[in-house]
Amino acid sequence: MPFTSNAYGIEKQGEPLKPIVIKRRDLQPSDVKIEIKWTGICGSDLHVGRNDWKFSSYPCVLGHEIVGVAVEVGPECTKISKGDYVAIGCLVDSCLNCIDCKEHHEQNCIVHRVGTYGSPDEYLPGQQTYGGYSEDIVVKENFVIKVPESLSSNPDLLKAAAPIACAGITTWIPLKSFNVGPGTKVAVAGLGGLGHMAIKLARGLGADVTLISRSHKKDALAKEVGASRVISSSDPAEMKAASRQFDILIDTISVDHDLNVYLELVRPYKTLAVVGHFGPLEKNPLNTASIIRGNRNLTGSNIGGIKDTQELFDFCGEKGIVPDVEIIKMKDVNEAWSRLDKSDVKFRFVIDIDDFRNSAK
Amino acid sequence: MPFTSNAYGIEKQGEPLKPIVIKRRDLQPSDVKIEIKWTGICGSDLHVGRNDWKFSSYPCVLGHEIVGVAVEVGPECTKISKGDYVAIGCLVDSCLNCIDCKEHHEQNCIVHRVGTYGSPDEYLPGQQTYGGYSEDIVVKENFVIKVPESLSSNPDLLKAAAPIACAGITTWIPLKSFNVGPGTKVAVAGLGGLGHMAIKLARGLGADVTLISRSHKKDALAKEVGASRVISSSDPAEMKAASRQFDILIDTISVDHDLNVYLELVRPYKTLAVVGHFGPLEKNPLNTASIIRGNRNLTGSNIGGIKDTQELFDFCGEKGIVPDVEIIKMKDVNEAWSRLDKSDVKFRFVIDIDDFRNSAK
Repeated sequence: MPFTSNAYGIEKQGEPLKPIVIKRRDLQPSDVKIEIKWTGICGSDLHVGRNDWKFSSYPCVLGHEIVGVAVEVGPECTKISKGDYVAIGCLVDSCLNCIDCKEHHEQNCIVHRVGTYGSPDEYLPGQQTYGGYSEDIVVKENFVIKVPESLSSNPDLLKAAAPIACAGITTWIPLKSFNVGPGTKVAVAGLGGLGHMAIKLARGLGADVTLISRSHKKDALAKEVGASRVISSSDPAEMKAASRQFDILIDTISVDHDLNVYLELVRPYKTLAVVGHFGPLEKNPLNTASIIRGNRNLTGSNIGGIKDTQELFDFCGEKGIVPDVEIIKMKDVNEAWSRLDKSDVKFRFVIDIDDFRNSAK
Repeated sequence: MPFTSNAYGIEKQGEPLKPIVIKRRDLQPSDVKIEIKWTGICGSDLHVGRNDWKFSSYPCVLGHEIVGVAVEVGPECTKISKGDYVAIGCLVDSCLNCIDCKEHHEQNCIVHRVGTYGSPDEYLPGQQTYGGYSEDIVVKENFVIKVPESLSSNPDLLKAAAPIACAGITTWIPLKSFNVGPGTKVAVAGLGGLGHMAIKLARGLGADVTLISRSHKKDALAKEVGASRVISSSDPAEMKAASRQFDILIDTISVDHDLNVYLELVRPYKTLAVVGHFGPLEKNPLNTASIIRGNRNLTGSNIGGIKDTQELFDFCGEKGIVPDVEIIKMKDVNEAWSRLDKSDVKFRFVIDIDDFRNSAK
């Protein structure tokens, strides 16, 4: 029998988030039931909550950056034990049989990819999957990340770890795919949720990191999170001097901008990685001469598979890397969304779910 | 003292190619003097000859796919001996000191890259470098490729080898950079000079190759050069079935087209490599969602460095791979240009320079 769980959701398009009661499935043999402790607020939550991408349905419960405790573990589970700290990212199921799944890129499964929120829920027909703005979640063990003890044993790190599952992994994939390490010259464009994680992770890998920002207003902040220097994209002289300087540039800018300007900063045979969603997605003007004559790569990243996400949590534990977060109460989530809209957060909001659980009692 | 050499060139923009006499520098200590035997006609020759790219100057002598014999070798040369068969591609000098040169990507040197034609000639002030539509050329040994004996000893292979230096290397770089080999699913879009070389080289590396063409008219031809099958880009059902099927797609189409259609055929984490110059270069509309959500790469290739070009000549010798060529006489070069404009060649014109030398006597 399904059980009920308190959550915050949106009942109808255009309405604010408010308390709702949702159903969660009973534990299946290979499931883990998770008491949620911390849930990050991702920009995608806002887009889906507001139906910006035209595929939302309602009611919806957002949240795909989740950290909690395994409180029940099905008999077929092999990896997670009761009491383990665990994380859930953007995925809760996939076919596990197609070439993408077999290569551990479950996020690219087109046979049966189930998002943490907003996908049809096959266990509870007629409802969609509900995310982490809630007390509990039940997830197939294959999609549960184990939070390493180095993070779970430190309350300050643990409460900030949830966004690793989305903001972290999205920036991690290009850093790893293109072999960032000591000696690599990394640039990061944009200092938000993704940008500050890209800086921390690249630094953690031993690279030298430059922030590209619209001005020099964030210089101190950028250096705090690990950048060695800041280039102002508004200063033509600084941008010219940066031409062909970087081995990889992680473009986290989430508003409309000209990709070609950033391609020019990348060395031949090197890579511009676009990770921020911006529009109009369908027709960003690309100077193919910059790709062809410059022998450059343009790549994208959109989260990652479970194996890579586990590797990233382990890496973050080893290096003590977590996002900078601002902890909020669930009742303040609408205000947090408004502030996120204005980029008024350093750098990620995380909802205190224990507080929500206690206040709901 | 410079010496004179017979050539075919364009005296003024808009004029046809006609016989001209050019100066070549005297042999320097690290130079090789080459008696040219075969020169391929590249699409870039037409673009530069007609000033399509707005940087041409006149008179100009085109040709950057050159095979010949080393007839004089400076005392500081260490690699090339008198009598060796050699090749020259698009480059005849670079700084050899910058990071790009040190990584063997001399084509990306911005300190001092000297093209085989159309660059200022530092040895003959006031004139520009002249290419291979001529009897002889003098080139610094660092930029001379040694034609392996497996090619030079076989007249049928030798006469077809010159386009390896440009059409070959341009398609080789992405095949090698993205580890094409047995098991790789390669697609090639367009069956021209570059396209047919991409197919031959991918096959030579052991990959399975699919041609994407506007129709099925070239099926037999495609299979002759090594494709296993052909997909018609005009058939929506065939294109739909090809969605996310390829590990790498080499796009050699040299007319305006929609990149996004080809990106869709590439698997996540895999690569679309654009090697054909097409326009408008500055603003091809790119669907960044296809890059981001598909975790795909878009890359470009524009020739390659000397080390890679030598490696390719050696590979072609080992595998017996050369372009399919149509041998022409120098006096017919204007007609060949007209035919190339209409893609009326299978697949590369090569000028018989011995015939030109003898007819000029």
